[in-house]
Amino acid sequence: MSDNKIFIFDTTLRDGEQVPGCKLNTQQKLEIAKELERLGVDVIEAGFPISSPGDFEAVARICDMVRNPIICGLSRAVEKDIKVAAEALQSAKRPRIHTGIGTSDSHVKFKLKTTREKVIERAVAAVKYAKSFVEDVEFYAEDAGRTDNEFLARVIQAVVEAGATVLNIPDTTGYCLPDEYGAKIKFLKENVKGIHKTIISTHCHNDLGLATANSIFGIRNGARQIECTINGIGERAGNTSLEEVVMVMRQHGHLGFEDNIQTKLLNPISQLVSDRMGMVVQPNKAIVGTNAFAHSSGIHQDGVIKNRETYEIINPLDVGVDQSKIVLTARSGRAAIAYRAKNIGYNLTKLELDKVYEQFLKVADRQKEVGDDDLTGIIKTVDGVTV
Amino acid sequence: MSDNKIFIFDTTLRDGEQVPGCKLNTQQKLEIAKELERLGVDVIEAGFPISSPGDFEAVARICDMVRNPIICGLSRAVEKDIKVAAEALQSAKRPRIHTGIGTSDSHVKFKLKTTREKVIERAVAAVKYAKSFVEDVEFYAEDAGRTDNEFLARVIQAVVEAGATVLNIPDTTGYCLPDEYGAKIKFLKENVKGIHKTIISTHCHNDLGLATANSIFGIRNGARQIECTINGIGERAGNTSLEEVVMVMRQHGHLGFEDNIQTKLLNPISQLVSDRMGMVVQPNKAIVGTNAFAHSSGIHQDGVIKNRETYEIINPLDVGVDQSKIVLTARSGRAAIAYRAKNIGYNLTKLELDKVYEQFLKVADRQKEVGDDDLTGIIKTVDGVTV
Repeated sequence: MSDNKIFIFDTTLRDGEQVPGCKLNTQQKLEIAKELERLGVDVIEAGFPISSPGDFEAVARICDMVRNPIICGLSRAVEKDIKVAAEALQSAKRPRIHTGIGTSDSHVKFKLKTTREKVIERAVAAVKYAKSFVEDVEFYAEDAGRTDNEFLARVIQAVVEAGATVLNIPDTTGYCLPDEYGAKIKFLKENVKGIHKTIISTHCHNDLGLATANSIFGIRNGARQIECTINGIGERAGNTSLEEVVMVMRQHGHLGFEDNIQTKLLNPISQLVSDRMGMVVQPNKAIVGTNAFAHSSGIHQDGVIKNRETYEIINPLDVGVDQSKIVLTARSGRAAIAYRAKNIGYNLTKLELDKVYEQFLKVADRQKEVGDDDLTGIIKTVDGVTV
Repeated sequence: MSDNKIFIFDTTLRDGEQVPGCKLNTQQKLEIAKELERLGVDVIEAGFPISSPGDFEAVARICDMVRNPIICGLSRAVEKDIKVAAEALQSAKRPRIHTGIGTSDSHVKFKLKTTREKVIERAVAAVKYAKSFVEDVEFYAEDAGRTDNEFLARVIQAVVEAGATVLNIPDTTGYCLPDEYGAKIKFLKENVKGIHKTIISTHCHNDLGLATANSIFGIRNGARQIECTINGIGERAGNTSLEEVVMVMRQHGHLGFEDNIQTKLLNPISQLVSDRMGMVVQPNKAIVGTNAFAHSSGIHQDGVIKNRETYEIINPLDVGVDQSKIVLTARSGRAAIAYRAKNIGYNLTKLELDKVYEQFLKVADRQKEVGDDDLTGIIKTVDGVTV
């Protein structure tokens, strides 16, 4: 395996499902898990088994039916949680228990009402207990983003010694700046003994719109797993978008990262998740929004018609979108009108185009978009245009 | 004026309006412009006057009615565009003409079908011509993100000498990584003579989900204006979200930046723009999505009930949201149920809570959310609970 292989850990069914208005039934979770397997993710976090009987059942069913990715179940650093997660994962081909505890001052003092030393004890006990069920144990240091690096390194050192195989460093509240988050990963890599035998993982929230950049700075500083979700869904403003981090790696090949994702499936799975969860994707969402490859201004349309790469860095076909869209609006210019007119069978001369354009602007200023029917109507009112 | 004042240049009405499905009429543009003025933006890019008679009229009306911010009109490096922009801006108290030309190899060769030297000539001519109408002329080097830094510095040097007051360095295709974009701004700052008398501007697109990070790296490397839109709307995957860059600056006060934005108006204006443009904001959109301050998992709800800051870095009141939402779903725990039960008048004992929780999970596994009515129903079926 290459040193630059990035493991994609999808948590659509756990962090993503943990959102008001988007609970899924078991059948739907299974359907999404199968598509995630086809997409090529390395790990599926299938749920939080202790949280409800329905979630337990979904995790167990996914273990039965989805055999290629590692299947992971979440737990707190609590014996009962870990035991129930292990039960739910019993039939998995490659099970992983994900356990952890808050490490920031805010979490230690206000949420856990305990001390730093007790937190380390509980973290170690949780990892050891999880190791009694499965070999692959991932530890999360909740709110690592706001945890002081020296203390974080002590916690991580302790769980590495206890046998953790994957170390999740979550920016739980979406607070970090990219270079700050990258420096945190680097600090751990340089200060925790034996960390090179483990995989460091990013888990970034998007409260300030920085989740994608933070994840990329994480892997550029030594992390080798990215936790993410389809469409960036998740608690509050959501988690890192799987489609965004994967396409950053593809577009910036000079960074040298490798992944297993079948990018042509990104748009279909985005639509599946949006539909089954009832969570709308905004038109201007990167990669998977309906406008992500649409061009409406004259300047841009002219450029794209001459050469797609003038305004598009990603070939839409690579992410499962049929083609770039040239949409006619009041911001469109002659080039786009000539292009669309040609598509519907009219080769306009320069003079004809000028006349059509003038009429077109009047229609376009009245309505949002001008469709092919409208355009045909306009062309027919202009003297002397022939098919 | 402080050296660290960041000018917020809002282009919702130009780049944002330039989107399939979201054309506005003049009345609606005026309504949004007035709200942008109340929000405290420094510059409003009101439109692209040459593009259509409707857009011309909207820019002219905004100049009449909105007096505090600078009003800016877009043009290509074409005399007619610039002349028409100047006409539209005639009654503005503080007019700015925004003109420019593509500078990347892709734009020079495929779109403009010209040479680098001709591009510099056209850039200089455009700036000089614009200066014959107004004092404040902003120049954009289209696709600067993919333009080689040495050539970009030559273009920028030439337009500075021609009198440009603001220098826009757009990452037109949303390609750059944050450190790469920051390094580009730094290179210009260090290599263009007289640049310290101008304002360098960022204009980042979000095709890879990096627009916010890129804008922040831009200002950390010397830019002092950020071009952005409400809800991050704009061509394709959109532009930088105004609400995100502003809240990054507020949350990271140690960076030392200052701005004029009234953050309490961020949510109201987000809703206004979404409504008038018919452009939906996804629930997991940072700052302004309906779930941005909602908590549904038990772990998070427990933390937020104990202390809001455990899982929230932004106080929702600061951005015009009434309060954090504690939404009951199958992922909720006892703490959230006790909290919501108390809100509706039931102080549950530990034993009562255990019984209610057991019943609650059955209901929650069947339905997405459990409302106060459902919770009352559950509580009433459990023996011995009194108000």
